Amino acid sequence: MHRRKFLGGGAVGAAGLAAGCDCGVPAGLESVGSDLQSRELKMVTTWPKDFPGLGMMAERTARFITEMSGGAMRVQLFAAGELVPAFESFDAVSNGAADIYHGAEYYWVGKSPAFAFFTAVPFGMTAQEIMAWTEFGGGQELWDELSGRFNIKPFVAGNSGHQLAGWFKREINSLEDMRGMKFRMPGLGGEVLRRIGVSAVALPGGEIYQALQSGAIDGTEWVGPWNDLAFGFYREAKYYYWPGFHEPGAQLGAGVNLDLWNSLTLQEQSIVRGACQRANHLGLAEFIHHNAIALDQLINEHGVELRRLPDEVMEALARESKNVLEETAATDDISRRVFESYKASLNRSMAWSRISDEAYMRARRDLFSL
Amino acid sequence: MHRRKFLGGGAVGAAGLAAGCDCGVPAGLESVGSDLQSRELKMVTTWPKDFPGLGMMAERTARFITEMSGGAMRVQLFAAGELVPAFESFDAVSNGAADIYHGAEYYWVGKSPAFAFFTAVPFGMTAQEIMAWTEFGGGQELWDELSGRFNIKPFVAGNSGHQLAGWFKREINSLEDMRGMKFRMPGLGGEVLRRIGVSAVALPGGEIYQALQSGAIDGTEWVGPWNDLAFGFYREAKYYYWPGFHEPGAQLGAGVNLDLWNSLTLQEQSIVRGACQRANHLGLAEFIHHNAIALDQLINEHGVELRRLPDEVMEALARESKNVLEETAATDDISRRVFESYKASLNRSMAWSRISDEAYMRARRDLFSL
Repeated sequence: MHRRKFLGGGAVGAAGLAAGCDCGVPAGLESVGSDLQSRELKMVTTWPKDFPGLGMMAERTARFITEMSGGAMRVQLFAAGELVPAFESFDAVSNGAADIYHGAEYYWVGKSPAFAFFTAVPFGMTAQEIMAWTEFGGGQELWDELSGRFNIKPFVAGNSGHQLAGWFKREINSLEDMRGMKFRMPGLGGEVLRRIGVSAVALPGGEIYQALQSGAIDGTEWVGPWNDLAFGFYREAKYYYWPGFHEPGAQLGAGVNLDLWNSLTLQEQSIVRGACQRANHLGLAEFIHHNAIALDQLINEHGVELRRLPDEVMEALARESKNVLEETAATDDISRRVFESYKASLNRSMAWSRISDEAYMRARRDLFSL
Repeated sequence: MHRRKFLGGGAVGAAGLAAGCDCGVPAGLESVGSDLQSRELKMVTTWPKDFPGLGMMAERTARFITEMSGGAMRVQLFAAGELVPAFESFDAVSNGAADIYHGAEYYWVGKSPAFAFFTAVPFGMTAQEIMAWTEFGGGQELWDELSGRFNIKPFVAGNSGHQLAGWFKREINSLEDMRGMKFRMPGLGGEVLRRIGVSAVALPGGEIYQALQSGAIDGTEWVGPWNDLAFGFYREAKYYYWPGFHEPGAQLGAGVNLDLWNSLTLQEQSIVRGACQRANHLGLAEFIHHNAIALDQLINEHGVELRRLPDEVMEALARESKNVLEETAATDDISRRVFESYKASLNRSMAWSRISDEAYMRARRDLFSL
């Protein structure tokens, strides 16, 4: 029944076949037998302890390195503040006080605005698109150059998927309704909001709920249905607005001390990079799954009202996003080059998404039901 | 400048922290020091040698296992026909003649129609959605049960992203224009086409071009712009129709002989599973990247004309897709249970995609340009 033919020249070692692959791990492992040094590695993160979604991606990255090395590379995970404060994670890895960080690259824009492009920018790439640009479209090489200046080797290590516009206490029916409103949104998204007249503030996660409750802010974005449900924002702001514009697919990153990275064997490098890529795959899948469940609960159990942002608001946001991105690009040479690479890839991806995922999802919800 | 505080109880082993994680690899590696047996593993695939995209995912899976084990687990990769014919890969792993396969699960529908849901079905899940269902929505557990009956442990190991409707020699302006046309589309998609009057045929990849050239067929689907450009279909059929309905995000799979899987250490299992997840991450990213580039070339260098399938055609396809899926679900008990799980997850994902990625991509292309 099952004819099998062994072809003499047919069996080719995997490393040989993959010679043309640009996925970044050197080919040519000739030795048979694992050779791992026993290492204790400190991973610092920008996430609170046991933080769902984003924090899980850090935990998985750490655990996968430990597991795939059979415990030879033991990663100790430190939540924000346990070893260093969240926003000192980058410096700690840069100077060797820690070995790896897990966080979001846009936290490092004080070092160069270019870092924002490796997480998410307003009206920028979706989750799939930023994976494509970073892994295959020239993004990784520019990121290596940028982070290399700080003695860090960076990797893709998670994605939140689409982030919605957020929670509003009042309905928004015009651009005028946005003016003067106090809204929590940090980063480039917040800057875009300011340019259309919103008073954008950058509160840390732990302070948002109380600010919403006290009336200090009129609305907030956070992550998406999964994390937003856990924070209970629906109790203080009834309207949940879509789509988001500020983080259409926030990519998380891990950074390894460059001296350490260069001292690792091919096997150890492959394990570290592999752990980051697994974390990206699972993290994105987990967000899609839990966002869909949480959205259902928000609507059907908590009476949340979904609202679409008016066209004139989206138009103004799109116009100011373009301005903010172009100004960001003009700040230094590396920001300009990162922007140009990002822009070329984004323009191609927009043409592809129009006739593929976007058109398909539209046709499916219009015409199909199970 | 960089204050650092070591908190006595702050350092927690990664394995401990991740106890609540449902990503499937057992926690609790206490031993320090890798312990890998030297193993020679045969991987058979359903892909021709050096096949771009789909074949690269198999090659990466093989290479990553070899690399992350430092060569202790040496994977020999056999293209279709080198060790066994493509469609005997599953049986070869089931009976131990090979150790792992890489392919697409819908090739095994002769064993149970349920396998189709783990690759792609008409009007079904996108790439992100099937990742979410398989990894977190109950899909993996049902897949384990299904493949376990054949002594196989299955894993997610790649995704092509959206596949377009394909190449047509003539314009399609109505449902009537589809009737009687000879079109290459295998599987459930082909069955849907037959129900709207198309004469659907299932030619292997290597025979499509000549059939198109000779006029034996009036059109064909294949994968997407990247692979379709390489085959040169644009020379024989001028119109490229979108969106696709038949494979909205085709997930590839790897299967490990279950006796082998159960004999692996935690470390070895984590390496194998990790290699598959890396292949999924990179494969999807690579398709998004190359499809976008190839689409640009098809339009701007080869004068291909993009056309949107008429609403009445999409309506008819949606109606018959629902019928075909429900009939597939009714064939056996496991197909029914897989279908119910898939359906629940798809319905949640459709509600989420409407207000997130779909709405965002629409607003971006309408309002934004860089």
